[in-house]
Amino acid sequence: MRSIDEVLLLGPGPSPTSAAVQRAQSRPLLGHLDPQFTPILDRIQVGLRRLFGTNNPLTLPLAGTGTAGMEALVANLVEPGDRVVVGVHGVFGQRFAEAVRRAGGDAVVVAAEFGASLDPDAFAAAIAGGPTRACVVVHAETSTGVLSDLRPFAAAARSADALLLVDCVTSIGGVALDFDALGVDAAFCGTQKCLSAPPGLAPVTFGERALARVAARRAPVPFYFDTRLLTGYFGPDRAYHYTAPISMLYALEAALDELEAEGMVAREARHRAVAASLRQGLEVLGLKPLVPVSHATPMLTTVRYPDGIDDKAFRGHLRQAHRIEVGGGLGPLAGKVFRVGLMGHGAQPANVLRALAAFGDALAAQGRPADVAGALAAARAV
Amino acid sequence: MRSIDEVLLLGPGPSPTSAAVQRAQSRPLLGHLDPQFTPILDRIQVGLRRLFGTNNPLTLPLAGTGTAGMEALVANLVEPGDRVVVGVHGVFGQRFAEAVRRAGGDAVVVAAEFGASLDPDAFAAAIAGGPTRACVVVHAETSTGVLSDLRPFAAAARSADALLLVDCVTSIGGVALDFDALGVDAAFCGTQKCLSAPPGLAPVTFGERALARVAARRAPVPFYFDTRLLTGYFGPDRAYHYTAPISMLYALEAALDELEAEGMVAREARHRAVAASLRQGLEVLGLKPLVPVSHATPMLTTVRYPDGIDDKAFRGHLRQAHRIEVGGGLGPLAGKVFRVGLMGHGAQPANVLRALAAFGDALAAQGRPADVAGALAAARAV
Repeated sequence: MRSIDEVLLLGPGPSPTSAAVQRAQSRPLLGHLDPQFTPILDRIQVGLRRLFGTNNPLTLPLAGTGTAGMEALVANLVEPGDRVVVGVHGVFGQRFAEAVRRAGGDAVVVAAEFGASLDPDAFAAAIAGGPTRACVVVHAETSTGVLSDLRPFAAAARSADALLLVDCVTSIGGVALDFDALGVDAAFCGTQKCLSAPPGLAPVTFGERALARVAARRAPVPFYFDTRLLTGYFGPDRAYHYTAPISMLYALEAALDELEAEGMVAREARHRAVAASLRQGLEVLGLKPLVPVSHATPMLTTVRYPDGIDDKAFRGHLRQAHRIEVGGGLGPLAGKVFRVGLMGHGAQPANVLRALAAFGDALAAQGRPADVAGALAAARAV
Repeated sequence: MRSIDEVLLLGPGPSPTSAAVQRAQSRPLLGHLDPQFTPILDRIQVGLRRLFGTNNPLTLPLAGTGTAGMEALVANLVEPGDRVVVGVHGVFGQRFAEAVRRAGGDAVVVAAEFGASLDPDAFAAAIAGGPTRACVVVHAETSTGVLSDLRPFAAAARSADALLLVDCVTSIGGVALDFDALGVDAAFCGTQKCLSAPPGLAPVTFGERALARVAARRAPVPFYFDTRLLTGYFGPDRAYHYTAPISMLYALEAALDELEAEGMVAREARHRAVAASLRQGLEVLGLKPLVPVSHATPMLTTVRYPDGIDDKAFRGHLRQAHRIEVGGGLGPLAGKVFRVGLMGHGAQPANVLRALAAFGDALAAQGRPADVAGALAAARAV
């Protein structure tokens, strides 16, 4: 085990964790059925329900990364032959469509350009185009930084009696969610974005309509992801399904405690304020966000490179000279953008200033001097 | 977050982690592609290969519990209609058979009583009874404490050209494994037994024959468990598959460091010595192991209750009065046995003495006084 030089995590995740979350994780292990441990499971479920904006009893942190949460939705809710409409305007929609196809589903893709918003009318038309069992929207596309207004998609799903499945990996804990009121039937996320717990858990929620679908399945559900077996452990029976990842759950409990102490209204305002501050500073540096503020995610800002700036050298400079991690572009955006995450514990004004100074320096290192002092002043003025 | 009263974990897992492992886990997060982090992945893979006794390039810690490792083997290696012979003499064989059936496989069960060993001749006959694609052996049955000699099963599998899949969740890190020499085609384990890292990771290994089977599949593999996508991240490409559980991997690296410093020969001897010491003490207390020493797991000893001793009260006394966790019986053994794990960091002589004293006290609490002093002396004499 070597020592680690700390890196400021301003990429698309993981985000930095607080000292309290780090400490929580290193507490001595308890058994997964210990009377001191099961109340922690209960508290986590209560906290997650609040964040999803749901009363769904089946709301729990699955052992696995956020991708395991996607797989859990597909494994339980997609059967061979099911028509599933998937909104694809980024890598995470593509992955969901791929997972649906692998489960034998008929993935009907409604596409928009990377960086653009999904067209709700096209989505509704696709749903109406056949007997649609489910539809999928990525709430905050981590590959582009587009935040979708879920309302029109929810209306389209409900009018066709299709389940609405939502990927809220990047949005949860950064913007308030109200999934019961919206009519979201199932959703999944990860812990390493705006929740600021370490990666490795996938909170999921399944509503009544979704569970009725599971109960009526003809095809079996893979063992690991079976909602009925998961409920056996997370519900009052405490029946063994697997050995829960104790220390990760300690960390998640601590992160949820911090979230509750701050309150979701204040937390969303904090994310929006640092995002606005970042945009002001970027403008002075001559750096243009990919997505207009009207439909951009506050927790993740995708920034176009000016012509002639090399992605690898730019991000390498940030990492080596400034010890800052930002994300690169994915798919058609590779080499054309970088992605700045100001998420959870990382969404702090001081991090905006440190990032802007580093961006200016990285531009200068490629022969493009920028007004760093002006950028910092503009950011501070928000 | 409430404070936790430490409990001595002497059940079937999780086992106690060392202070170094706990500290490792609380280090600041790095990005999953950070140049400081990817060498940690490489070191973990080298360490796991050594423990499995394999040169398989595809040897990696999957994000999920041990059960996710089982699911990964099934998801990649079982196709609808495949005939799979599963040795079942405990709960973990039952679960594997169930996972095979859910994947559409034809699970042919070779059963033995809980607590007995599998009959290699019956196993070979089952393999010969049809075109068998794969067969499954649980190396150390955590529900009973039986350790299987894998050699006859490996020979039977090889003679029929069936893949040999092994569950080594409880054995790895407690007894030396030599899976390449044996001819094991794929195996999985967990981190929370004799590796003494927290639960939440599933080390898996897939050999050449297994990967050829994956390449020849007709049915797609679920996204999360796809060995080809996993190889993309864990191999030299470092292609994004999911955000790796950074802090858990820190802990696993530290646990593997401790394992390497001790050496597997010394570690196996330590497990065998404390198990022998426990058995000597149990005998003086009048407590009989379920499994004869000749085919018992050294890391987990299943103990029969004397007539009239109540399981719930016995284990409750250990937990409340002595802050010791042991496991209860599963399936047909529920209420009839308790399970004592002396695993990894927990396999220490002092823990044997503390456990024996507590067992004697728990018997006395139910009106069955026992010779605790004699038990301790007998245990120390080993």
